[in-house]
Amino acid sequence: MLQSQLFTKTIKNTPQDETSLNAQMLIKAGFIDKLFAGAYTILPLGLRVLKNIEEIIREEIDNTDGQEIYMPALHPFENYKKTQRDKMDILFHTQLQNKSRLVLGTSHEEVLVPLMKKFILSYKDLPKAIYQFQTKFRNELRAKSGIMRGREFLMKDMYSFHATEDCLNKYYKLIQKAYFNIFSRCGILDKTYFTFASGGTFSKYSHEFQTVCVAGEDTIYVCDKCNLAINEEIIKEQSACPNCNNKELKQEKSIESGNIFKLGNRFTKAFNAKYTNNNGEQKDILMGCYGIGLGRLMGTIVELHHDENGIIWPNEIAPFKVHLILIENKKGTTSSKEKAQEIYELLQENNINTLYDDRHDATIGEKFADADLIGCSYRVIISDKTIKNKSLEIKNRITGEVEFVKTEEIIEHMTHNI
Amino acid sequence: MLQSQLFTKTIKNTPQDETSLNAQMLIKAGFIDKLFAGAYTILPLGLRVLKNIEEIIREEIDNTDGQEIYMPALHPFENYKKTQRDKMDILFHTQLQNKSRLVLGTSHEEVLVPLMKKFILSYKDLPKAIYQFQTKFRNELRAKSGIMRGREFLMKDMYSFHATEDCLNKYYKLIQKAYFNIFSRCGILDKTYFTFASGGTFSKYSHEFQTVCVAGEDTIYVCDKCNLAINEEIIKEQSACPNCNNKELKQEKSIESGNIFKLGNRFTKAFNAKYTNNNGEQKDILMGCYGIGLGRLMGTIVELHHDENGIIWPNEIAPFKVHLILIENKKGTTSSKEKAQEIYELLQENNINTLYDDRHDATIGEKFADADLIGCSYRVIISDKTIKNKSLEIKNRITGEVEFVKTEEIIEHMTHNI
Repeated sequence: MLQSQLFTKTIKNTPQDETSLNAQMLIKAGFIDKLFAGAYTILPLGLRVLKNIEEIIREEIDNTDGQEIYMPALHPFENYKKTQRDKMDILFHTQLQNKSRLVLGTSHEEVLVPLMKKFILSYKDLPKAIYQFQTKFRNELRAKSGIMRGREFLMKDMYSFHATEDCLNKYYKLIQKAYFNIFSRCGILDKTYFTFASGGTFSKYSHEFQTVCVAGEDTIYVCDKCNLAINEEIIKEQSACPNCNNKELKQEKSIESGNIFKLGNRFTKAFNAKYTNNNGEQKDILMGCYGIGLGRLMGTIVELHHDENGIIWPNEIAPFKVHLILIENKKGTTSSKEKAQEIYELLQENNINTLYDDRHDATIGEKFADADLIGCSYRVIISDKTIKNKSLEIKNRITGEVEFVKTEEIIEHMTHNI
Repeated sequence: MLQSQLFTKTIKNTPQDETSLNAQMLIKAGFIDKLFAGAYTILPLGLRVLKNIEEIIREEIDNTDGQEIYMPALHPFENYKKTQRDKMDILFHTQLQNKSRLVLGTSHEEVLVPLMKKFILSYKDLPKAIYQFQTKFRNELRAKSGIMRGREFLMKDMYSFHATEDCLNKYYKLIQKAYFNIFSRCGILDKTYFTFASGGTFSKYSHEFQTVCVAGEDTIYVCDKCNLAINEEIIKEQSACPNCNNKELKQEKSIESGNIFKLGNRFTKAFNAKYTNNNGEQKDILMGCYGIGLGRLMGTIVELHHDENGIIWPNEIAPFKVHLILIENKKGTTSSKEKAQEIYELLQENNINTLYDDRHDATIGEKFADADLIGCSYRVIISDKTIKNKSLEIKNRITGEVEFVKTEEIIEHMTHNI
């Protein structure tokens, strides 16, 4: 993409109405724009990042045999009476012209369970795992953590359906692995702890994936020996590591990057969703649910990966792999411009996503500052000097290393590095 | 994908609460499920179709230099007062816990114009074209045309911003071409007419892309000579073809597959969104807007492409290119099953999307009926008989033609055909 064409611009001043670093950096760099507290427009650079995150999640979830669907955001209010979630204060309420009451989905059990009831009749139809990327609406009293706690936000929510507890437990383990893969590819695994949380009526614990971060809204208690943690809710009743019984837990601020929950028959019972087992008996279908907020994940990555100059995206997440920067000479000869265009086309043809800073009205300093702020993986500089040396200057945004690579070797070099 | 794993099943009986053919067929084949009138869950097969449509639209719109973003669905109500759209009866209303009023977006001028105002300062920042795929909410009094008129539906909406009328007019022409390409690739171009509609205050006409179809809710008057039409709204004042003055227009029922509109300063004036021209003067930014409903497009394709046995998807739209069907022998020997698995893997490795009907509990008749109902492009049959002949039986769902292709030539044959 040509940077001269991009409609967003980086912003010099830190937005005064944002207290969180993630929102400040993402707004300054032109990834998001705030509509009101808790509701953000995702701008072109931000959408590229979100789609990278979405694709990572999709790949890992498809590997667990998840099937992707897309459910409505408007839900009949009567379904929430059935599950006794009609009193939740975070529900947005609205109605049809004929006065039928609707709510905006905070999650999708009330839609999916009646749907699955139509298709799951026998134990032969189980297990099944269904997921979607869908906008969730939560009427939070306050929304002050940037994109970490939105009133409207994109979420991967997933629900699994099982005949037996054993089957549910096996799938629950499989998803843990998938989640660790996701957080690894998103560059936050080393700070992310599998965390014990309260489990509701069906199981002793649910589990959160908590990422240690000073900006976190949550508090966890980490067992360094087991790489496990316990969350604030249950620390009074469970004050030692559930694995090794270690009592010396370390208190940390953290962000909930994901959560998984054994729902059991909590929702299937409400909708009388049963299957016939191999003895011909009717049994409640058992469920698990598994969520990851995409915006929150983007924000967490920013909180963990930045320096004073801007964002440092992990390779797989970056909006572009290469930020190609043309430094024009003062004489106004066209050699470097032509060469830059040539390199840009070459990179594009080889499927190396490139943001090409072709702006004439930006200084070298502005171009470098923007590149640091936006945080693509590799900054590639082309100027009369590099052309004279028949090479390109490549700076790795993560390591800060600078290399000079022969022009004809750029594709091989980039393909090798990415 | 293995059909035995797919959680949806085809439904034999026509759903009684659907009067429209598109919804009946899409529900029977397992593409969509109705939550309430005007709100449908998109099931795995349907999501594959919608994503194919989305990708076609994205490619064609990117070719016009459109930049993709993603805006919130919750909009501040006060913005609608500014544009005097606060009285629209199709608005869904809701509010924050602090009583701030919100509406659900029916379109996105009230969000995008204030956003663009931050980035467009000078004529040098123009033109720009911004689009998104986003859920729209319209509180329709009645919703009875299946997925053709949803209360909640996915839409590609796009807005262009210009310094001059001339620039707007040029882009407006460019989008017409892009729309014709989209409708061509979606297989509905030959029935789709560029239709003159009322233009509002800024221009004489707006334009719709109306697809002739008996199930359409609209009425148009077609000029056969010019391949143009006039819509019902303006037929009294414009009773002849605007191009050739032909007065013998043919009345047809039709579906509005897309619409484009020159908004002029209708919305920019409301938000005082101005740019500085090259004389240093402040001028209103001019706008165009361009919409395509994805669900409606899916429904239109079904209305136009089906037979008594089911849907016949155009090649680029089909959920899978190949529907591989295993006919197991009665002796229970495994040769055909192993061969089918081998062919399935081969197709997948070569990126030929395949739905493999590996079900043991379905009869040959049921498998064929399902394949016709679902409507993938090519049905490939493997049985002891085809293995004996070292060939595969391939039936084209569109032409009905049957061919026998040597097993080792299947990839070349399919790649050539798709």
